[in-house]
Amino acid sequence: MHMFKSKLEKIIKDKNSLLCIGLDCDIEKIPRFLLDESDPLLSFNKEIINATSEYAIAYKPNISFYEALGIPGWNLLEKTLAEIPHDILTIADAKRSDIGNSSIKYADLFFNMFGFDAITVSPYMGFDSIQPFLEFDDRCTFILCLTSNEGSRDFQYLNVDSEPLFIKIARKVTEWNLTNSNCGLVVGATHPEDIGSIREIAPHLPFLIPGIGIQGGNLKLTIQYGTDDSGGCTLINVGRSILYASSQKNFAEQAREKARFFKEEINSFRLQKRNQQ
Amino acid sequence: MHMFKSKLEKIIKDKNSLLCIGLDCDIEKIPRFLLDESDPLLSFNKEIINATSEYAIAYKPNISFYEALGIPGWNLLEKTLAEIPHDILTIADAKRSDIGNSSIKYADLFFNMFGFDAITVSPYMGFDSIQPFLEFDDRCTFILCLTSNEGSRDFQYLNVDSEPLFIKIARKVTEWNLTNSNCGLVVGATHPEDIGSIREIAPHLPFLIPGIGIQGGNLKLTIQYGTDDSGGCTLINVGRSILYASSQKNFAEQAREKARFFKEEINSFRLQKRNQQ
Repeated sequence: MHMFKSKLEKIIKDKNSLLCIGLDCDIEKIPRFLLDESDPLLSFNKEIINATSEYAIAYKPNISFYEALGIPGWNLLEKTLAEIPHDILTIADAKRSDIGNSSIKYADLFFNMFGFDAITVSPYMGFDSIQPFLEFDDRCTFILCLTSNEGSRDFQYLNVDSEPLFIKIARKVTEWNLTNSNCGLVVGATHPEDIGSIREIAPHLPFLIPGIGIQGGNLKLTIQYGTDDSGGCTLINVGRSILYASSQKNFAEQAREKARFFKEEINSFRLQKRNQQ
Repeated sequence: MHMFKSKLEKIIKDKNSLLCIGLDCDIEKIPRFLLDESDPLLSFNKEIINATSEYAIAYKPNISFYEALGIPGWNLLEKTLAEIPHDILTIADAKRSDIGNSSIKYADLFFNMFGFDAITVSPYMGFDSIQPFLEFDDRCTFILCLTSNEGSRDFQYLNVDSEPLFIKIARKVTEWNLTNSNCGLVVGATHPEDIGSIREIAPHLPFLIPGIGIQGGNLKLTIQYGTDDSGGCTLINVGRSILYASSQKNFAEQAREKARFFKEEINSFRLQKRNQQ
């Protein structure tokens, strides 16, 4: 079996969890007392990772938060990745896409230099913009399908031959997946009604699902429609609700508590789904 | 008038040129003798800029080439920008897009920290992913509309209510443009037959047109259909054909010669168009 997917299945089983944690660290949101540290964001990430790694199957740094810091941001990203236990998956939430020779550069950066297990990419430019990522057959490339933000309504629902554009994207990605079985889809929890349609088209593709927590996605329906028949094949991302659970000294403990809460909440809905089958 | 557009119009007139040069510097493609320099890519970029700035109205670094170098790449980008004369426009070819709080970070990085005049972004995630860029009302945000690569056929031509998706994108961008008049469109020269349809929808929007040179776009038709009524409002990007015109000691001279050639070729087609009117 493809390496990313087998790692994903193993860790879902071992940890009995679908929880992915979005490491979107923001100097304006971390607890104030950390500002006395020599590298406040690294201290924050370290504490968050240590506190939550029992429950997480993946960590997903949104690259914008690191890139925006300039050079210190890339150091921070590298050091943060070094803190993540080896069995836990790492996803570069980069949403990149470009013509082939540029995508080759991005693939090299995130897969070779940083060693990420997976990346998110944008589909608009089509196959040759994504192929350089797909050539890494031991990694996973999550293609934006239906995103969790308001703006997803602008284009993703446009009617193409009687079905929405995002469905066309999902169909195309299942074709791309035939070569190396290393595609995944980004599907927002804010559209639970549509996740089911995408799961029908792509019954075995890993889904990376943002939109839970601050963004208000419906967790119960997301699990109901988003997981595969075994109740897995899905990463439920939670970011800010865990990271900034508290701004006090006990922020890491509170983050741990939130992570545990989400893991269990997710599992209770997985159980409900199993009992319905 | 909006600041980017007035700067664009002024420089097109002052230099009598539409030429934008893509600064996609690649250590494997620059002349070998430069490898003896302490910073070969910076030396390369400096020489290219000095040699071609007489003809260029803009420089467009593709961010992937810099980002892929890790930390030295960001230094290189900063030092390269410092070499560009102040009247010449700078475009970050970043093709970014993300949910609002992440796009804010990217906008801050490219507009505030690096001071670019313009950026390219991907439309798939819709308005709120692009709005943070649009809030910089003195800059220009070029939205991918119809790209120059093969993969543009995968989704951009999908039939939405009897017209292709890229036309829908162009229409939507003209709406977004109403607020601050600071949108542009990326339109590939490899589809000259379609550039005209986009120009009809967006008669006054700046077009950034890649695909000339190595990518094989038709320059004559691109000018015919892509420029506005005044024969301007367009940046014709040429990258590799100028950058790697020669791998010998005289590479900068040869790059200058190529830049002059493209400038004049473009102008001869602008003249043809004017004469037809």
